[in-house]
Amino acid sequence: MSNTNNQNASHEWQTENMTFVLFGATGDLAKRKLFPALYNLYVDNKLPTTLSIVCLGRGDYCDTDFLTKVEDALTRFSRRTIEPQTLQKFLSAFRYCKFDATNEDSYRHLNELIQSREQQLSLPENRLFYLSVAPTLIERIATGLDASGINHTAGWKRLIVEKPFGNDLKSAQQLNKTLSQFFHDDEVYRIDHFLGKPIVQNLTSLVSRNPVFNSLLTHENIANVQITAFETVGVETRAEFYDEVGALLDMVQNHLLQLVMMTALHLPEQATAQEIRAKKVAIMKAIRSISKEDVAREVVRGQYEAGTISNESVLGYKEEPGVSTISTTDTYFAARLYIDNAHWKDIPFYIRTGKRTTSKSTKIVIEFKTETDTPNLLVIDIGPHQGLSLTINVKNPTTKQFEPATLTFQSSTENEPEAYELLLFDACVGNATFFANWQELELSWQWIQPILETFQQNTVPLAPYIAGSNGPIEATELIQQQQFTWW
Amino acid sequence: MSNTNNQNASHEWQTENMTFVLFGATGDLAKRKLFPALYNLYVDNKLPTTLSIVCLGRGDYCDTDFLTKVEDALTRFSRRTIEPQTLQKFLSAFRYCKFDATNEDSYRHLNELIQSREQQLSLPENRLFYLSVAPTLIERIATGLDASGINHTAGWKRLIVEKPFGNDLKSAQQLNKTLSQFFHDDEVYRIDHFLGKPIVQNLTSLVSRNPVFNSLLTHENIANVQITAFETVGVETRAEFYDEVGALLDMVQNHLLQLVMMTALHLPEQATAQEIRAKKVAIMKAIRSISKEDVAREVVRGQYEAGTISNESVLGYKEEPGVSTISTTDTYFAARLYIDNAHWKDIPFYIRTGKRTTSKSTKIVIEFKTETDTPNLLVIDIGPHQGLSLTINVKNPTTKQFEPATLTFQSSTENEPEAYELLLFDACVGNATFFANWQELELSWQWIQPILETFQQNTVPLAPYIAGSNGPIEATELIQQQQFTWW
Repeated sequence: MSNTNNQNASHEWQTENMTFVLFGATGDLAKRKLFPALYNLYVDNKLPTTLSIVCLGRGDYCDTDFLTKVEDALTRFSRRTIEPQTLQKFLSAFRYCKFDATNEDSYRHLNELIQSREQQLSLPENRLFYLSVAPTLIERIATGLDASGINHTAGWKRLIVEKPFGNDLKSAQQLNKTLSQFFHDDEVYRIDHFLGKPIVQNLTSLVSRNPVFNSLLTHENIANVQITAFETVGVETRAEFYDEVGALLDMVQNHLLQLVMMTALHLPEQATAQEIRAKKVAIMKAIRSISKEDVAREVVRGQYEAGTISNESVLGYKEEPGVSTISTTDTYFAARLYIDNAHWKDIPFYIRTGKRTTSKSTKIVIEFKTETDTPNLLVIDIGPHQGLSLTINVKNPTTKQFEPATLTFQSSTENEPEAYELLLFDACVGNATFFANWQELELSWQWIQPILETFQQNTVPLAPYIAGSNGPIEATELIQQQQFTWW
Repeated sequence: MSNTNNQNASHEWQTENMTFVLFGATGDLAKRKLFPALYNLYVDNKLPTTLSIVCLGRGDYCDTDFLTKVEDALTRFSRRTIEPQTLQKFLSAFRYCKFDATNEDSYRHLNELIQSREQQLSLPENRLFYLSVAPTLIERIATGLDASGINHTAGWKRLIVEKPFGNDLKSAQQLNKTLSQFFHDDEVYRIDHFLGKPIVQNLTSLVSRNPVFNSLLTHENIANVQITAFETVGVETRAEFYDEVGALLDMVQNHLLQLVMMTALHLPEQATAQEIRAKKVAIMKAIRSISKEDVAREVVRGQYEAGTISNESVLGYKEEPGVSTISTTDTYFAARLYIDNAHWKDIPFYIRTGKRTTSKSTKIVIEFKTETDTPNLLVIDIGPHQGLSLTINVKNPTTKQFEPATLTFQSSTENEPEAYELLLFDACVGNATFFANWQELELSWQWIQPILETFQQNTVPLAPYIAGSNGPIEATELIQQQQFTWW
């Protein structure tokens, strides 16, 4: 492979010395994902040479106690084993600071700490704020960062926010409006960890780098696209949160629509970050809206009932602790959608997500047109394992019957960086390619809004399904209308 | 999958009760391949309900002694374990008869044995003659079968012959002329065991049954085709035979040209046995001939010298026991050829075969056109494992560089019938799809003849290569002329 052709992909992103400010540093995400991601980036020499990591939480810890917590988190969750010497150097970047988002003094203290570390380490005023906090605190913190002057830096500033970004179109617009007072749109990095998966990131170059896929993935060849995100777990410890949002807001508005955009990209030539963004926005614009009147026809809203998964009895959704016994929250969602552009015209996208399904699986299936046989399938496996496979028909030499055979590539999970590693690195170097931008987010909320309203107003049926099944019969019927089946 | 679409493939072939006459029943092929194949077909209920197996050899054995030899062969070489009860029933079909191909009495005795068994078992006069004998005996036996009346049957008769079919164009034509006096062309089954491999047989339906391959394998997409048949072994115990023939006659005239035809088939719709035959003949006709003047440019003739394979020193070809110390026999052959039809116009086929190469591998590689990257490859693995794979470019999430990734399907060898099982079954039911017919064979000899003559006249260079390498530098240069590399 010639190196010249890869420059485009790697030349422009430089790490600069900086301060990483983590709000919510005593939370679950920090423990399981963020500290391990930072550590693994450090081991790979992908962090800035000089880095100050300021960790904020409501708890009262001295630095030593906090570092013990970080070390413990790394031992449990890092994909690499921890080497004591490397660890000590890595931890020397950390400072802990007790923080109350509603308290002005907290911001003052924070400002002092950031500045004193900047002086100590001769750091430029490059500041990355990671908000791993309750959604209700985002606007408060952004305002506080501004009021205290923390975000008035001589260097660059970036704000990373976690989902959910709003809980309907209006609140998302409101949140964006607030943030945009203090941060330029290209300073806001909205995390969608599905976009951090290597196999999903590969969708930007699948066609441009592989002539075979350019030939295969044509408008003429594709019968339909199916995107599935299934999990066997129920609401776990998130019942109260989940009962407020449901599958539509928890999975569809962000992850599934992102996968739709990434699948539909079909970039015939290598594209810049800007071109990818523009194409995603164009796709999201081209997704045909589903009016409230059409929701009952194009969408399936489901909720699980008691059943059995892996030989274990599990409760129905309404029986889960923390869930209202008359809840109408969707734990399953399926829909048919169309992208009204030249490449995807009239090719249905079927999307579905559900809790308490028979197995855990996130995948994109591209089904090819066929005359008579079992169709050929291109499957992009996103979870639990990442990979690619192509299903074809092969003649059984003994029976002379045709049987499906699958050509499989599974990426080795051992050496593969986790989504948060890739996303944190990108945020550190200012590459927003794999973050959700406001335009696509607003468009996705616009698409979601009529569906959300019919759900909230309970004007479409709530289809029950047995825990351990693949969802309600209505989802099967939805796809069978066009003589297809779910893969 | 609908069953109606598979009828074509399986409906027409019926087993009929018959006599199987095996010439050369005490030979190596019978022991290693034919008896195990018959046994496994028997276990699968794929042999006729009533079957007489008459085994002929020069040795003097009573039936009991011979059956012990068969049992021993099965124990050693059958892919399935032997069950005593099944074995006894299977062996009851066998009779042994001492046979001298040059002796008229032998044919008389054989005739009597065949007929007495037919009466005993109430068999119709369906007779299959399998000639697993030295090439020099084929004409003699065919003549004897006719003179003795053995091949004048009230039922059908079929003649299976092994390679080589002649040793040049003229002798092949002579052999065919003799056989055609006694057997109709469609009664002659010329074995090429490469055509018995399930993955090779699948080439007839790869395009018609898989829309993805119909889209991929277009004239526009394919850069070149490479067919390799490499083995690590030297001449083994066949030195005297091999030194007379060389790679060109031992591998190219039959196996490699058959693989070229099978690869080039590209049947967009399911084809009958007749259509496949006709297409193969058309392809063989369309292969551009290489004149004696062009051999030096389009062909590489190689011979191995002493070297190392798997850390073991091995002799050079001329040092092998049984080989002339001034031998110019080719143990390596490579060539570039073109098929002058619409689909393959200007797409080079590179073929190569060699002994004492670095590893054992038989495969067909279809390389797709590319602008800049590592090309996409479709690989049909024929040996030592059968399978299909597709190599694509995937972005390494950490380095952002593109790296090859391979989607692989490997058929399970355990349950897969051996080439001889499939071929013997086809011969029993009269399906000649996967046997070489005379037209394609004569055309292949016509293509070979000028090359053969330059080899025999020693008018082209003999390129030395080190045992344990992938062949002479000249073969690398041949493919590099068009900016390609061997895969």
